[in-house]
Amino acid sequence: MNYESQDGMIGKRLPIRDAVVKTTGQLRYVADMKLPRMLHGKILFSPVAHARIKSIDTSKAEALPGVRAVVTYLNTPDTLFNCCGETIDESKNERIFSPVVRHVGDRVAAVAADTLAIAEKAVRLIEVEYEELPFYLDPEEAMKEEAYPIHEGGNIAEVVNLNQGDVDEGMKEADLVFEDRYTLPGIHQAYIETHAALASYDANGKLTVWSPTQDAWSVRMNLCRIFNLKMSRVRVVADPVGGGFGGKIDILIEHVAAALAMKAGRPVRIVLTRREDIPVAHSRHPMVMYIRTGVKRDGTIVAQDVHAVINTGGYAGGTSAIAWAMGGKLFRMTNTPNLRFKATEVYTNTIPTGAMRGFGSPQLFFAQQRQINKIAKELGLDMTEMLLKNLKGVHDKDERNGTPLGDLYAKECVSMGAEMFDWKGALAEQEASRKENGRYRVGVGMAVAAHGNGVFGVHTDISGVILKMNDDGTLVMSSGSCDMGNGVVTLQAQLISEILTIPMEDVTFVQADTDNTLYDWGNFSSRGTYVCGAAAVKAGNAMKRMLLEEAADLLPEDIDRIELRDGRAWSLNYPDRSATMAELASHARHKSHRDLVAAVNHTSNGMAVSFGAHFVKVRVDTQTGEVKPLDYVAVHDVGTPLNPMNLEGQVEGAIQMGLGYALCESINLDAKGKVTNSTFRQYHIFTAPEMPPIRVAFVGKPEPTGPYGGKSIGECSVVPSPAAIANAVSNALEQDYHDLPLRKEVILASLSK
Amino acid sequence: MNYESQDGMIGKRLPIRDAVVKTTGQLRYVADMKLPRMLHGKILFSPVAHARIKSIDTSKAEALPGVRAVVTYLNTPDTLFNCCGETIDESKNERIFSPVVRHVGDRVAAVAADTLAIAEKAVRLIEVEYEELPFYLDPEEAMKEEAYPIHEGGNIAEVVNLNQGDVDEGMKEADLVFEDRYTLPGIHQAYIETHAALASYDANGKLTVWSPTQDAWSVRMNLCRIFNLKMSRVRVVADPVGGGFGGKIDILIEHVAAALAMKAGRPVRIVLTRREDIPVAHSRHPMVMYIRTGVKRDGTIVAQDVHAVINTGGYAGGTSAIAWAMGGKLFRMTNTPNLRFKATEVYTNTIPTGAMRGFGSPQLFFAQQRQINKIAKELGLDMTEMLLKNLKGVHDKDERNGTPLGDLYAKECVSMGAEMFDWKGALAEQEASRKENGRYRVGVGMAVAAHGNGVFGVHTDISGVILKMNDDGTLVMSSGSCDMGNGVVTLQAQLISEILTIPMEDVTFVQADTDNTLYDWGNFSSRGTYVCGAAAVKAGNAMKRMLLEEAADLLPEDIDRIELRDGRAWSLNYPDRSATMAELASHARHKSHRDLVAAVNHTSNGMAVSFGAHFVKVRVDTQTGEVKPLDYVAVHDVGTPLNPMNLEGQVEGAIQMGLGYALCESINLDAKGKVTNSTFRQYHIFTAPEMPPIRVAFVGKPEPTGPYGGKSIGECSVVPSPAAIANAVSNALEQDYHDLPLRKEVILASLSK
Repeated sequence: MNYESQDGMIGKRLPIRDAVVKTTGQLRYVADMKLPRMLHGKILFSPVAHARIKSIDTSKAEALPGVRAVVTYLNTPDTLFNCCGETIDESKNERIFSPVVRHVGDRVAAVAADTLAIAEKAVRLIEVEYEELPFYLDPEEAMKEEAYPIHEGGNIAEVVNLNQGDVDEGMKEADLVFEDRYTLPGIHQAYIETHAALASYDANGKLTVWSPTQDAWSVRMNLCRIFNLKMSRVRVVADPVGGGFGGKIDILIEHVAAALAMKAGRPVRIVLTRREDIPVAHSRHPMVMYIRTGVKRDGTIVAQDVHAVINTGGYAGGTSAIAWAMGGKLFRMTNTPNLRFKATEVYTNTIPTGAMRGFGSPQLFFAQQRQINKIAKELGLDMTEMLLKNLKGVHDKDERNGTPLGDLYAKECVSMGAEMFDWKGALAEQEASRKENGRYRVGVGMAVAAHGNGVFGVHTDISGVILKMNDDGTLVMSSGSCDMGNGVVTLQAQLISEILTIPMEDVTFVQADTDNTLYDWGNFSSRGTYVCGAAAVKAGNAMKRMLLEEAADLLPEDIDRIELRDGRAWSLNYPDRSATMAELASHARHKSHRDLVAAVNHTSNGMAVSFGAHFVKVRVDTQTGEVKPLDYVAVHDVGTPLNPMNLEGQVEGAIQMGLGYALCESINLDAKGKVTNSTFRQYHIFTAPEMPPIRVAFVGKPEPTGPYGGKSIGECSVVPSPAAIANAVSNALEQDYHDLPLRKEVILASLSK
Repeated sequence: MNYESQDGMIGKRLPIRDAVVKTTGQLRYVADMKLPRMLHGKILFSPVAHARIKSIDTSKAEALPGVRAVVTYLNTPDTLFNCCGETIDESKNERIFSPVVRHVGDRVAAVAADTLAIAEKAVRLIEVEYEELPFYLDPEEAMKEEAYPIHEGGNIAEVVNLNQGDVDEGMKEADLVFEDRYTLPGIHQAYIETHAALASYDANGKLTVWSPTQDAWSVRMNLCRIFNLKMSRVRVVADPVGGGFGGKIDILIEHVAAALAMKAGRPVRIVLTRREDIPVAHSRHPMVMYIRTGVKRDGTIVAQDVHAVINTGGYAGGTSAIAWAMGGKLFRMTNTPNLRFKATEVYTNTIPTGAMRGFGSPQLFFAQQRQINKIAKELGLDMTEMLLKNLKGVHDKDERNGTPLGDLYAKECVSMGAEMFDWKGALAEQEASRKENGRYRVGVGMAVAAHGNGVFGVHTDISGVILKMNDDGTLVMSSGSCDMGNGVVTLQAQLISEILTIPMEDVTFVQADTDNTLYDWGNFSSRGTYVCGAAAVKAGNAMKRMLLEEAADLLPEDIDRIELRDGRAWSLNYPDRSATMAELASHARHKSHRDLVAAVNHTSNGMAVSFGAHFVKVRVDTQTGEVKPLDYVAVHDVGTPLNPMNLEGQVEGAIQMGLGYALCESINLDAKGKVTNSTFRQYHIFTAPEMPPIRVAFVGKPEPTGPYGGKSIGECSVVPSPAAIANAVSNALEQDYHDLPLRKEVILASLSK
C-alpha cells in the first residue's frame, strides 16, 4: 500500500536514526560511561518482604579499604517522593531508603567504592537486624480489613470510580448477564539494558545525572525534590535507552547514585545486574479483573461493570495514574450506554509496579475481549459481528464529557483484518479441526484495543523542540523527548525534513537533556507521533516561515509567492529565482542579523484514539499443551501511516510482547515473596523462532488533529494479542481460560479435567 | 571605589563560575575523558625544518599489534584549509599532512593504538626519507628575492598597507624625525593545559570532537571543509579550556584525531605532551618593527610610519588577520594626522604563528611606546605629557573612515595612573638613583595601549544566547561562547541575573557546543564583555519581556506598571500583587502554553576601544643584570567595571604575561630550526614570587554602546607592560633597548659596552 500524502517524506519507509549505531555496538550507554575518579555503586536490597530495621551497622563496610561512601536511611534525606513524578500524596510515596522495608528488593543501603568488587564486598559487610512483620503477596488478602498495614492508612492505596449511564438499571434491561473473574500476572518489561545511573556532584553544587530514562524531566523533578535543589542545580541527561517499554519512566536508582556522589564527592555509577533488575524494577501490575456484562440477544452490550483489583506492590508508584488511565479507556471502546469502572489499588509486599506498554489497557481489554469471545459464542454470533455492533464509530465521542476521540476507524480495523486473515475460512478450519479431534487442535481468535495518544485528559501534554539552522543550511533539532528504540526522534526529524523539503540526514538531533532541550513529558503514553510529532511540525513550520521571510527579501519575491522545494526557496512568479538553504541562512545572519532558530512548545489539547484488531490462528498440541501461533494479522488505525516500516516494527515487537504475556511470562515469587525467575534463562520471553508469520496493515485514513494525519502506535499494538491468543486457545480446546499465562502445564491441566 | 550602577549585580566582585570546580580538580578536561573502545593517538612530527618527503613507510607501524590506524598525507584528504578559519587563499593554507614539511614539528603521520605506549612505539617505526631543502629561520632572509620558496608563490605571504593623511608630507613638517628598529621574539601562550582532542565518528557518519578550543565554530567549519561533511554531521564541543590566551583558536590536532577516528572506526584521543606542544602550537609572531616618527618640538606627533616584518612561520595561519588588526590599531591611539602602516608577512621554516592575547598590539605598541619614551626624553618632555598631547579624546573617531571608537578615556587613564603611581615622585627617585650611580639603579617607565572590542570592522561580530526558564523559575543560559578562564560566561550570567533580579546561582550555563548552542565567534578578540555580554543582555531583556507579559495576565496589571524586583514581578499600582518566577513560569506553561525561552543573536555593529596606562618602577642590579619590578600601577578604561574582581584578575594576569615578554620569554631555536626550550623548566614564564605589588584602577565611566556601560579588558591589559618595563629599564640605565626579552645577559652585555 502507498500512504504517501505527497511526493515527499510522508509514508516513507525509514529506519530509526540510531539503528546502525546501535547494531554496530557504537552507541554509548550509561554502563559504558566512565568519568574521572568515578566510583562504583552497589545497593543492598532487602532479603525479607516486610520488616522494621532494628539496627543497621555499616562500620565494617566503611572500614573496608576502597570504600568511599555508605548511605542508609540514617544519612540521606527522608523526603517523600513519588517515583513516577505524581503529585505528592503521602500514602503513595517512598523514600530513598526507609527504616521499614516493604518488599524483597526494597532498598536498604548502598556503597560507593573504587571498584565494583570492593563495593560488592562492602555491601555484604553491612549488618542489618530486621524485625519481621506480617506480609502479603496476594492483594485480595492484603485488602482485608484485619490485614496488617503495610503503610500508615492501611493497605488500600486508592479507590477509583468512573461511571457513565446507570449500570444497575442497564443490567436490568439485558437479556443475559455474564460475570467473570480474570487474573493477570506481574510481568517484566524485558528491556535489554538494565537500569543504570551515573551521578556527578561538583564543588559548584551542580548535580548531573545520566540515566537511560524515558522521562528526564520527571527524574530531574524528583531529584530536586529529594535533595531540595533548585532546577538550575540539577541536570538530567537521558542517555541512549536500551529498551524501556515503560520500565524506565520511574526514578529507581538515580537518587541512590546521587546520594552516593554527594557523600563521596566523586562521580558514582550504578549498573544493576539482571538478577537485581528484574526483582526491583517496577513491573506491570498483577491484577484481578472482575467483569460483568449485560447483553441483548442480538449482541448489543447494554451495560458493563468492571472492577480491577490492582496489586501495587510495596509502594504505589504509578498505580494511581494507571488506574485512572485504565478506567478512561473503557469509555473509548464501545458505545455501551451504561459503563462503570472501579479500581482498588492494594499494597502488598511484592515488587512495586509501574508503567508497561499499555498502561492498564492490557489487563482491561484482556478481560473485556475474553469475555466478549465467550458471550459471542454463547449467543451464536461471530465475535467480529458482535464487535461491529458495539464499537465506537468514526466521529463518536467519550460520552461522559463529550471529549472528541478523533476520527476512530475501529470498525474498519475489524473488517479489514477479518478479510486479510480470511476470518470465515479460519473459523471453518477451526470447526474442521474440532470435528477431527486429533492430537493437534487449530483455533482462531481475535481481539481489539483502543488507546489514547498522549497524557491529555489527565495532564496538560507538552512537547518542546528547538530547531536551529546551521550556516550551511543543515539543521540541529533538539528534542525534549528521547528515543528508546521506538523512533520518536526519527519521526520528528522526518516531519521537519518533509516541511523544509530537505534530506533527513540534514537534520541532526539532540535528545532529552534538561539543560539543553525544552521541557517534554517524555517518551511514553503513546505521545510520540501525536504530541512530539506535532511539536516537530510546529517547529518546522516556524522555521519555514523564517526561511520564507528571508527568501522574500533575498529573491526578492512576495512572501506568499514563494515555495520550498528540493531544499530551495523558489519564486512562483519568476522560476529562475531561487535560493538554497545555505543562502537563506547566510542572508539571515548577515542581512537580517538573526539566527534561524525556532524554540517551540506544543501543548496538546486534543485526544485521538488509536485502534487495532488482531487475528491469530494457533495450533495446540493436546499431548504437550504447547501452543504454536501459526498465522497472525494485525490491522491498525494510526491515521496516516507516516513511516510504515517503523510502524510495522512496532506492531511486530508488540505482538512478541503480547504472545509472551499470553503464553509464558510471569514474575514468580516464592512463599516468602522472593522472585524465583530473575534471569532471562528463567524468565521466558517469547523468542524469534517461536514467532508466527505476521501481516500488518493500516486503515490509512488521516487523523485530522494529528501531525500530517498521524496517530501513535506504541501501546495500542501490544494490547489485543493476549486476548486474541487466549481466545484462539479457548476456541481451539472449547475451554474458557481466565488466567494468564497459558503455559503448557495450564493447558494440560485443563485438558485432564 | 564603588562602581555599582544600582543596588544589584553591576559592579559586584564575583568569582568565575567554575573557579571552585577547577581548583578542586573536579573540572573534567579532554585529557580526562574516556570513551568506550577509545584509542590513543600519537603524531609523528617532522625532525627537519624543510624537506620533501621522498618516501614514507608505515608498514612496520601498521604491523605492530594494537595499532588500529595509521594516517599520512597518502590516505587523508589533501583539502587546503586555514587553521584559524580565514577565507581560503591557497598561499595561506595547510593540509592535515603534506608531502612537504615546512618546519620542525610539521605533521608527518599519526597513529591510533590501544595504548599510548603502543602508539608511541608505532610512531617510531614509521620510516620517512626526507629530501632536505634550503630553510630560513629569519624572515628578513626568507623575504629576499633569491630565497628558496617555502610555498609556491614565494615567501611573502601578504603585504598589508593602511594609510591616513600623507606621511611623507607630514614628515617634512616635523621638527625632528626618529627612526628605530625593534625586534620581538616568538613567545608561547603558556596555557597550563596542552592541546588535546577527542574524536568520535559513528556508523551514522556523525563526527563529534571534544576540544579545549576557544572557537568551536571555526573548528567545526574546518572539519566540515577538510572532510567534506555537512554541518549536521559534525559536532564540536568546546570542553573546559585550561587556558588559551589565543593559543587555542586555531585547529591544531582536531583534524588528526578525526582522521584517525574515521579510519579506525573507534574514538581517538590525542593529548600533546608539553615537549610536543610548545614547538607546534601556534605562537605569537616574532616581528621586526620599523618605526619612523616625525614630531614637533612641543611633542606633537605629526607623522608616524610603521613597517612590521611578520614572521608567519611555515604556514600563515592567523597572520593575515593579525596584520590587518594590528594595522587598524595604529589609527585608534593618537590624533596624528598622517599615519602609515605596512606589514610584510613572511614565511620561514619556523613554528606557524597565530593569535596570542593582543593580536598584534603587543608588537605594535611596544615599538611605538618605546620610541615615544625616547622621543620625550630627547625633547625634554615628561612622557605622560607627550601622550596627553597626542592621545585620542573621549569622542574622537578613526579618521580614516569616521568609525566611532566609543567614549575613550585614554587621557584619563594616563592622568589617574600618574597620580596613583606618584609619577613625579618616581621620576625624582629615578633621578636620585642616577645621581647616586650605585650597584642598583631605579628606573620608572610607563606605556599605554588601546584595543578594540570584538571583530567588528573586519567581520560581522555575532554572539548567540539561548535563555530558558525552568519550571521553578531558575534558568539555563546556553552560551555560544565558552569560558577559558577569563569569565565570559560568568559575566553573561551576571548580566542576566541583574536584569531578572534573581541570584546568580539561579542561572546555570551550557557553553559552546555547536549542536546545543547558538553560533558565536568564540572566546577571543576582547569580545567577551562587549559582544557576548551584549548578547546576554538582549536575551535577558527578551526573557524579562516575556515575564512581564505573563505577569500582566496573572497579577493582573498593565504591563507598563510591572517591575521585576527581588526575583518577583510586582504591580506598581497594587503593592500586594506580585508573582514569583516559578509562578510566572507555571502561568506560561499552563495558561499561555509556551515555554519561556529566548534564543537571541546579537550582531555587534559598533566598535568601542578599551584603553590602559601602566606605570612601573624597577630596580636593576648592574652587577647581575637582574631586573626587579618594585611597584606597578595599571589604570584602565573598561567603561563601567561590571565585575571589578574579575577585571583586576585579568589585569594582574596580563601584567604577569607582559613582564615575561619583556624580561624572560622567547621560543629559542637551534641552527636547524628546532626548539631548544620546550618545557616550562627551560621556557621561563614570569612566576608569582617575581611579581611586584600591583595596584589596579578603572576610570569607571560607562561606555554608551556597551552592555550596562561595560567594555572588554582581556587583551588591552597585556599590551602596555612590555614597553613600560623596557622604558623603565632603559630609563634606569640610560640605555635604549630595542630587542626583547631583556634578559640578564642582555643587560649585562649592554652595560659592558
